[in-house]
Amino acid sequence: MTRFEEIAARIPGVARGVAEETQRRLDAKTKPRGSLGRLESLACRIAAIRGTPVPEIPRMAIVVMAADHGVAEEGVSAYPQAVTGQMLRNFARGGAAINVLARQAGARVEVVDMGVREALPPMPGVRVHRVGPGTKNLALGAAMTREEAVRAIEAGIAVAERLVGEGITLFGLGEMGIGNTTAASALVAAFTGRKPEAVTGFGTGITPEIRRRKVEVIRRALDVNAPDPTDPLGVLAKLGGFEIAGLAGVALGGAASRIPVIMDGFITGAASLAAARMAPAAADYFIASHRSTEPGHAVVLEAMGTEPLFDLGLCLGEGTGAALAMAIVEAAVRILHEMATFESAGVSDQEG
Amino acid sequence: MTRFEEIAARIPGVARGVAEETQRRLDAKTKPRGSLGRLESLACRIAAIRGTPVPEIPRMAIVVMAADHGVAEEGVSAYPQAVTGQMLRNFARGGAAINVLARQAGARVEVVDMGVREALPPMPGVRVHRVGPGTKNLALGAAMTREEAVRAIEAGIAVAERLVGEGITLFGLGEMGIGNTTAASALVAAFTGRKPEAVTGFGTGITPEIRRRKVEVIRRALDVNAPDPTDPLGVLAKLGGFEIAGLAGVALGGAASRIPVIMDGFITGAASLAAARMAPAAADYFIASHRSTEPGHAVVLEAMGTEPLFDLGLCLGEGTGAALAMAIVEAAVRILHEMATFESAGVSDQEG
Repeated sequence: MTRFEEIAARIPGVARGVAEETQRRLDAKTKPRGSLGRLESLACRIAAIRGTPVPEIPRMAIVVMAADHGVAEEGVSAYPQAVTGQMLRNFARGGAAINVLARQAGARVEVVDMGVREALPPMPGVRVHRVGPGTKNLALGAAMTREEAVRAIEAGIAVAERLVGEGITLFGLGEMGIGNTTAASALVAAFTGRKPEAVTGFGTGITPEIRRRKVEVIRRALDVNAPDPTDPLGVLAKLGGFEIAGLAGVALGGAASRIPVIMDGFITGAASLAAARMAPAAADYFIASHRSTEPGHAVVLEAMGTEPLFDLGLCLGEGTGAALAMAIVEAAVRILHEMATFESAGVSDQEG
Repeated sequence: MTRFEEIAARIPGVARGVAEETQRRLDAKTKPRGSLGRLESLACRIAAIRGTPVPEIPRMAIVVMAADHGVAEEGVSAYPQAVTGQMLRNFARGGAAINVLARQAGARVEVVDMGVREALPPMPGVRVHRVGPGTKNLALGAAMTREEAVRAIEAGIAVAERLVGEGITLFGLGEMGIGNTTAASALVAAFTGRKPEAVTGFGTGITPEIRRRKVEVIRRALDVNAPDPTDPLGVLAKLGGFEIAGLAGVALGGAASRIPVIMDGFITGAASLAAARMAPAAADYFIASHRSTEPGHAVVLEAMGTEPLFDLGLCLGEGTGAALAMAIVEAAVRILHEMATFESAGVSDQEG
């Protein structure tokens, strides 16, 4: 048994009975029952995941993994491939959107180089778990070997376990990688059986012509790789990316340690879907933050049977939607900690 | 000219040219153009309201106004009338949902007694602008006189002006008042011409039978008061509440000082709609936070031509949705302040 299989096998079920106790406590707070809507169901979910009716105020980290993609050579992106490494540097220096939103949310940003094309000089704030200098072109064959996929997943598990050891209790997922919406579309098509057209969008802002080429590339990738959805690790290896496999590992490592994992947009959704296919028990730990404008993202959310918390028309990635959702998760937990009860506040309840 | 008419007359138009400059600055940030979706349009709106392309990080206050309603004697609520005053005390002590969410957002809570039934002993943290011991029963006649409505509005303007003087640059609206969804439904029916059934919901959790009675009460209120939608102050006086009129004043006072005003749910929406009918230029200053489960709220949002930022199934009031939205507004502004540009970060732009 590999480390990865061992982790996947020991993901516990969430504690549904605990969620009922949490709901009882919410019902005693000074508000009409249920009036905080999804904040209440979110509080119950966090409680069930953490296994305690009043879970701690979350200590948050957003894991942003970056890698390059061989498929970029097909001309499927609006930006040159060098942007992946340039943005990694931007993350390390704190100038990207995710840095701004994570700072505001009080979340740490954990930047991981999973394999950008050119290795960067060591930089403070960047963890290096390079599996290689980018994946191979998935339109021509497997993006990575099965062994590379396992190494990427296990790197993600290691990141998760280190963060848990440092006291983090809430994860967010984020990513950067020129070409990675193409990989995510191919993965989602393979896992859900949907046609490439239905799961392919405009990524970072490509033209309709480039989008047609992108659909064609995904079609060729599915033809040449013949992914077998009953072998999710094989699908991930053939069509994924180092950062996507790494994030699947973070998600699995989080679930194994009873940590809620907030997904961001389409790419982290595809990574979480892969994780859920490899270890179905993990899915209960994943929380959808937003619905991105990428059409494939709605397909992912539907496949996972989950509803996002909001739709703000985001399509940036990096973990930006996850960072915004962290404030909502924190609010849900704070309600449990800080609100008075009808009894403690001397407020008449409905029966009163 | 009363103070209220003078304020309403001097609300400036928002600076649309400034919003264009803000969008240009957003387009230089290290992200695909438009990829932050509604965060970008929100940043532009705040800039247009404040009249400067990079507005300050907001200093926030949520004004929670409480008052009692004569219509409560019709048995239209799930809670006894004493709860209004009890909750006012809860707000002052920091134990209510709005206190929790505002603390997290970094917003001050400004609690105002606009006229709960029994005057409370002076309490730190509660401002007193009592217009009277609750309104009259709107099912039998006017809820308040025109003069009382003006006094309530001017109290709200005074609260707004004091907060502006103290450096607050972002308002949220919140309320408490047993019976106030009945008043809000009547107001919205009168302003929009919609039938009482279409704008009446289950408030704090009434039974279907009580809801039927509530619809009947609203129908009688419209009959007996014959509100004239071309006289919005008259409509507000006949069907509103002291806290609703007060919040309309806060909204007008905010707009007159170029302060964005975040609406909460149905009742603050009705107050803002009244403000917009009295001073149409004010509407550009109002930001919809969420869509509440009260059916009348969607009618209000439609009448104001605005889309909320999120829908979390909330129906608590107090300003809870506005508090959650403040983090989103702050994020939008922080993007402008803190994100690197393509040039400053050495990241290749799309053309590169």
